[in-house]
Amino acid sequence: MARARPLPGVIGFLSDYGLKDEFVGICHGVIVARCPGARVVDLTHAIPRHDVLAGAIVLRSSLAYMPAAVHLAVVDPGVGTASRRAVALRTAEGVMLVGPDNGLLIPAAESLGGVAEAVDLDESPERLKPVSRTFHGRDIFAPVAAALAGGAALVDVGLPLEPGGLERLELREARVESGTLIARVLLCDAFGNLTLDASTEQLSALPSQLGGSLLVRSKAGEHLATYVLAFAQVPEGGLLMYEDSRGSLALAVNRGSAAELLGAGRGAELLVRAS
Amino acid sequence: MARARPLPGVIGFLSDYGLKDEFVGICHGVIVARCPGARVVDLTHAIPRHDVLAGAIVLRSSLAYMPAAVHLAVVDPGVGTASRRAVALRTAEGVMLVGPDNGLLIPAAESLGGVAEAVDLDESPERLKPVSRTFHGRDIFAPVAAALAGGAALVDVGLPLEPGGLERLELREARVESGTLIARVLLCDAFGNLTLDASTEQLSALPSQLGGSLLVRSKAGEHLATYVLAFAQVPEGGLLMYEDSRGSLALAVNRGSAAELLGAGRGAELLVRAS
Amino acid sequence: MARARPLPGVIGFLSDYGLKDEFVGICHGVIVARCPGARVVDLTHAIPRHDVLAGAIVLRSSLAYMPAAVHLAVVDPGVGTASRRAVALRTAEGVMLVGPDNGLLIPAAESLGGVAEAVDLDESPERLKPVSRTFHGRDIFAPVAAALAGGAALVDVGLPLEPGGLERLELREARVESGTLIARVLLCDAFGNLTLDASTEQLSALPSQLGGSLLVRSKAGEHLATYVLAFAQVPEGGLLMYEDSRGSLALAVNRGSAAELLGAGRGAELLVRAS
Repeated sequence: MARARPLPGVIGFLSDYGLKDEFVGICHGVIVARCPGARVVDLTHAIPRHDVLAGAIVLRSSLAYMPAAVHLAVVDPGVGTASRRAVALRTAEGVMLVGPDNGLLIPAAESLGGVAEAVDLDESPERLKPVSRTFHGRDIFAPVAAALAGGAALVDVGLPLEPGGLERLELREARVESGTLIARVLLCDAFGNLTLDASTEQLSALPSQLGGSLLVRSKAGEHLATYVLAFAQVPEGGLLMYEDSRGSLALAVNRGSAAELLGAGRGAELLVRAS
Repeated sequence: MARARPLPGVIGFLSDYGLKDEFVGICHGVIVARCPGARVVDLTHAIPRHDVLAGAIVLRSSLAYMPAAVHLAVVDPGVGTASRRAVALRTAEGVMLVGPDNGLLIPAAESLGGVAEAVDLDESPERLKPVSRTFHGRDIFAPVAAALAGGAALVDVGLPLEPGGLERLELREARVESGTLIARVLLCDAFGNLTLDASTEQLSALPSQLGGSLLVRSKAGEHLATYVLAFAQVPEGGLLMYEDSRGSLALAVNRGSAAELLGAGRGAELLVRAS
Repeated sequence: MARARPLPGVIGFLSDYGLKDEFVGICHGVIVARCPGARVVDLTHAIPRHDVLAGAIVLRSSLAYMPAAVHLAVVDPGVGTASRRAVALRTAEGVMLVGPDNGLLIPAAESLGGVAEAVDLDESPERLKPVSRTFHGRDIFAPVAAALAGGAALVDVGLPLEPGGLERLELREARVESGTLIARVLLCDAFGNLTLDASTEQLSALPSQLGGSLLVRSKAGEHLATYVLAFAQVPEGGLLMYEDSRGSLALAVNRGSAAELLGAGRGAELLVRAS
């Protein structure tokens, strides 16, 4: 699918703030105060706390559907330390990204043509003063995102920096070795469905085909899975492998939890081969 | 109370997606991309997973208050199976409903004058391609709701189908037998308050009256309840029967949990008689 | 920081309704139905159930950032009882506050210049009829907030009452006695960070200074804390004291939970002295 066309004034917002506190609401308030015409679309605020990689993957996988001219993303374990910069980026396709310089924004930026321009926000004229040491979402990122949504240019909100110096994440990808797919769990959703760092193309290298049986080895032992298109194609309680809605290979249990069955969470390694 | 008048461009959104993942945010993104003028009012996304009946009841009970021209509702255990159709309905009162053909939409549609027109969305020109097997909220229902909110007619978004062939739920209702009200728990909220499938009219048949004592029998035994108007009319920890904000008969414990006290959740049968 | 300038039509919304049920969504529906031009900014709906003091503190601490012309706030253990009035207030600075007369609104009102005018909403012409005994958020507060956001004056929505007769909370504040700060936990966030009823000025009276060691005594014993600006300035697992994003003195554990370490929740007393 083509990517959603960015709409002026639309800000996508992703964070690990959760909804148990007022942090997300405060950021909304700051945005509305600074740019009353902005429309904020909350992508999710339930990224696991401090899990920069999970945030980066969810942000990137949302691009096809989020018509945001500005993506505000905050997963920020280094907030308040001197070594972590606050940044805003413009991609080759003209989309803006605002957040910490810890790799969170880069996979999305690369999917949007790469970073064309970047600025350091630590002394941004848009920041709220005094800047707290613990809540840059409110004090730096939200007001900058609001300014950009209102039409400001990148140079208006920060000092130019060299895109090559931005922090990057190591994004592993699954590999196939002697007929075995060696994959890791990238994300685990609320239902225990496991998104892997693998694609259906890799699965076809095993070889395997729709309807075929697979052996999945985790720490908890080996389990048989069926490669199908939809949950309901296996019996209740059955393990299935499928292409999930993010376009990745995934494991699930029909009306159950693959995370529980396989004893596997974020980062766990799984070995998959044809049965 | 009269029903809220539908406002053009307003989309009500109910689902069982929860807020732990980005699914709701992605649907918002799709709607904004397709119909930037739409306003989405999130009714709730915490319908118990796959509980079509609970979703249907909450959707119906919201109609008095939700000024939505289009109701987008997704509780969809059969997603991706050939036997489950995706549908959009127009009610006699002109309100649109979009979701799976599993009965979820029908109680609300009947409260709005009944289904006047229905279309099958499986080949909708509005759907995102390719349509995934697991996330029709994003790929079919959200874009169709956006199109309808933007002024499209039902025939623009799907193929006509016979309203009589739509799936329906069996909606039980409490009954009174020899002075005993035989009711079921329809919904259990976050505080352990239990909404029954009964009305205050049925309670008055016991006979009972405000301030009177009732015996409530559940699996956990028998408990005395007081029939009152407000929680604070019984002591802390006391069991009360009252008309809840959905207009149904309900059980609660003042500053406690009726679900816990009675050992009763969704679907549990309760026997109530005057004490 | 200066307070956010109130914007016409913007309604801030805080409650203890949670997001597990449709209560927040229903209130949104009522507001949109009554004032389609209103913009609702959800501050938080996760105030601990019935915790009026926590709600009052969060509401007050949000004022710098929330550009709301109308604050709708509902933490309402007394709903449906005759002794609890429903009220709307206008502050000296022209901001409106709507909610129960149980003290919830007063600290915010006092930060906005004090209560200039107040009305009783129990017979408000804006209320939905019949008014339920359990859900005044929907039946009284939301429609009144919508009317005020739409430009109604206070006298249009209720009967004048004497501001001096409004309920007030006892707001304790920490004190310093013989070199010991005696403080209480005001709020505990989702990460176990503890906001105290003390300011950094009070800490400096101990005497203590940035980077210095403190002894924190709780029921669970004594723990050493470091007074720093940012989490990352102590090792993982270390206890820190800092000024939190609400401007209060707070305790946290870097990548851990101070609530757990200290065995302390909302209301707990803590003794802090220089080490």
